[in-house]
Amino acid sequence: MTVASLFDDLQKIRTRAPLVHNITNYVVMNNTANALLALGASPVMAHAREEVAEMTALSAALVINIGTLSSEWLDAMALAMAAAQGRGIPIVFDPVGAGATTFRTQSCLSLLDNVAPTVIRGNASEIMTLAGSSVQTKGVDSVAAESGAASAAFALAVKYSCVVVVSGAVDLITDGKNQFQVRNGHQMMPRVTGLGCSATALIGAFCAVNDNALLAATHAMLTMGICGEIAAHQAAGPGTLQLHIIDAFYNLTKQQLDSHWLDPEVK
Amino acid sequence: MTVASLFDDLQKIRTRAPLVHNITNYVVMNNTANALLALGASPVMAHAREEVAEMTALSAALVINIGTLSSEWLDAMALAMAAAQGRGIPIVFDPVGAGATTFRTQSCLSLLDNVAPTVIRGNASEIMTLAGSSVQTKGVDSVAAESGAASAAFALAVKYSCVVVVSGAVDLITDGKNQFQVRNGHQMMPRVTGLGCSATALIGAFCAVNDNALLAATHAMLTMGICGEIAAHQAAGPGTLQLHIIDAFYNLTKQQLDSHWLDPEVK
Amino acid sequence: MTVASLFDDLQKIRTRAPLVHNITNYVVMNNTANALLALGASPVMAHAREEVAEMTALSAALVINIGTLSSEWLDAMALAMAAAQGRGIPIVFDPVGAGATTFRTQSCLSLLDNVAPTVIRGNASEIMTLAGSSVQTKGVDSVAAESGAASAAFALAVKYSCVVVVSGAVDLITDGKNQFQVRNGHQMMPRVTGLGCSATALIGAFCAVNDNALLAATHAMLTMGICGEIAAHQAAGPGTLQLHIIDAFYNLTKQQLDSHWLDPEVK
Repeated sequence: MTVASLFDDLQKIRTRAPLVHNITNYVVMNNTANALLALGASPVMAHAREEVAEMTALSAALVINIGTLSSEWLDAMALAMAAAQGRGIPIVFDPVGAGATTFRTQSCLSLLDNVAPTVIRGNASEIMTLAGSSVQTKGVDSVAAESGAASAAFALAVKYSCVVVVSGAVDLITDGKNQFQVRNGHQMMPRVTGLGCSATALIGAFCAVNDNALLAATHAMLTMGICGEIAAHQAAGPGTLQLHIIDAFYNLTKQQLDSHWLDPEVK
Repeated sequence: MTVASLFDDLQKIRTRAPLVHNITNYVVMNNTANALLALGASPVMAHAREEVAEMTALSAALVINIGTLSSEWLDAMALAMAAAQGRGIPIVFDPVGAGATTFRTQSCLSLLDNVAPTVIRGNASEIMTLAGSSVQTKGVDSVAAESGAASAAFALAVKYSCVVVVSGAVDLITDGKNQFQVRNGHQMMPRVTGLGCSATALIGAFCAVNDNALLAATHAMLTMGICGEIAAHQAAGPGTLQLHIIDAFYNLTKQQLDSHWLDPEVK
Repeated sequence: MTVASLFDDLQKIRTRAPLVHNITNYVVMNNTANALLALGASPVMAHAREEVAEMTALSAALVINIGTLSSEWLDAMALAMAAAQGRGIPIVFDPVGAGATTFRTQSCLSLLDNVAPTVIRGNASEIMTLAGSSVQTKGVDSVAAESGAASAAFALAVKYSCVVVVSGAVDLITDGKNQFQVRNGHQMMPRVTGLGCSATALIGAFCAVNDNALLAATHAMLTMGICGEIAAHQAAGPGTLQLHIIDAFYNLTKQQLDSHWLDPEVK
């Protein structure tokens, strides 16, 4: 895990412009599309049952996010995930608000038990909910102590043979055996809606160009954290922060990666 | 009604981060979430019939906005409002475009007659429509003379035993007996989509920390107007205005309130 | 086609604030509303089958965009288009992603065969798909050589007796006989999501004040391209570009049109 390995993936995204199919929530669709475009990927949003499998088949990655779930969209997500699995297309899953309501928790478990994703990204309470840990959730915000999230993340990664990302002040990324910890980021970032969802979409873009999902997910979280730091330097609040992050994705250089780099290896 | 009373509510929002459940329209979801986050509240958007009652029960306020209504969402709104009523959770209602179509007007009246909200916020023509006043509506914009809106607001407040807010160059806030008038704001604000919807959401956040809905709603409208003035000072147009308002919510100080304060008392 | 003819339409939009009814996709609704508001028009978004015909009847233009289509929305689009046709209200159609999936292509052809629009705006591959040309589509991005798009645009314009706009580095606007080519714009614009959709909405606003759809559509594309150039001058990336374009719509002067003007006449 080096600046060079991250920048190599970034160059591939910028050169290939991989199509990333998103079935995501209404709140963040615009931000997600702009984050992917600024990074160099090609986003597409499509959720009709009539077309999701066909759209997924055209794509280099599938991103599923249940933030504003309804039963109709749940059906489309299941169809798209099955199509991705059948073609070996990486699937990134974001269980927004799992644990807050029975419908969200059950829907997540139903989707995951049917098709295991390549990467799951959530906050501590969402990951603990999916792992069956005891946790209290307050809406879509995480209130779980992050200490308990690590063991939940390892267990969940083993259960679905996937990579699990727990977002927080320090991000944890694990495949059930190895782990990375991303300490980049800025305290104002949780005050912008949908940056977690953007992180999930970025993981999709990196998985589209890197078969090693543990490295791809860590690269994505480093990109998010470093661009957040760059943007926070110019921002007067969360409104301007959101914009400058998009600009930072677009302009990100190897030099910037070098100067912001915090080693994600866990010694 | 003083700077101190407003700032006290604001500090409570920033400290408690109350969960505000929004069932709102597609156009403004992102802005609404960012406005609430910047203010210090915790927004959640959820509209599935399977989960709305459970999500409302977790929340400190419920915000209902019919801007892009469909029959499925109407059912969810009714379920959420009933859940809020049963638990004494404040409900803020935004009748976007009432009067423009029969569907919108009938849907509003059906929801309101079933469960009376804590606060209704609309423009003059929407409030006049709900009050049964004669009015001509042009889409979701208000064309009603604001003179006729005051009596409609008083009548509507009495009918539903609620607080009614009429937004305009001068905002009127009444519980049917008392009234406040907020003269803060900036003429460029109507050129940004969804600032009225953000005001509705802010009322939800203030109601979550202040049981006096007349004061809470007035505090929210003052916050909106003053932050609009601060933002307009830095903006070159409605694009940048939108961002700077979000930053202004995040950074708002007692000193800024003092220097922008226009007394809302009606002598 | 002169600066004066464009500015005359712009002044009419700013004076009359025509209501533009949009049935568009979730990703761009906020941008579309803000673009129309900044230009001087009055946007409304409504998609419920119960109200679309009534809302269209109130409007000066109807904008249909299939970006996040589902079968329920398809029904609403058909109802609104029929209502517009019956009242002579101009219809602008954006076939986002036509050719990417069978559902999108078939839905477009079904809508168009039922009610011919006033203007169709798409990228090269979308226009070629609708014209029945052989083309390979990668999601919602155009990969078609633009050389092949011109003949498809002419054929499509003749088929539906409408104006066809092919967006690209150079925009082509034709009624099947005459054509204009807009060379204004900036290379960073495709990195912002939904600017094509904003262009479609702007065509709606110009058609609301100008019965000559060929001129109206060309005026709209010139406005988009010139405001993009103005905004790019101030932007550090696609995040800030998006905002400055909104500001540019709001502030656009005859002097700016003069200094950025590239003659769209084809010699």
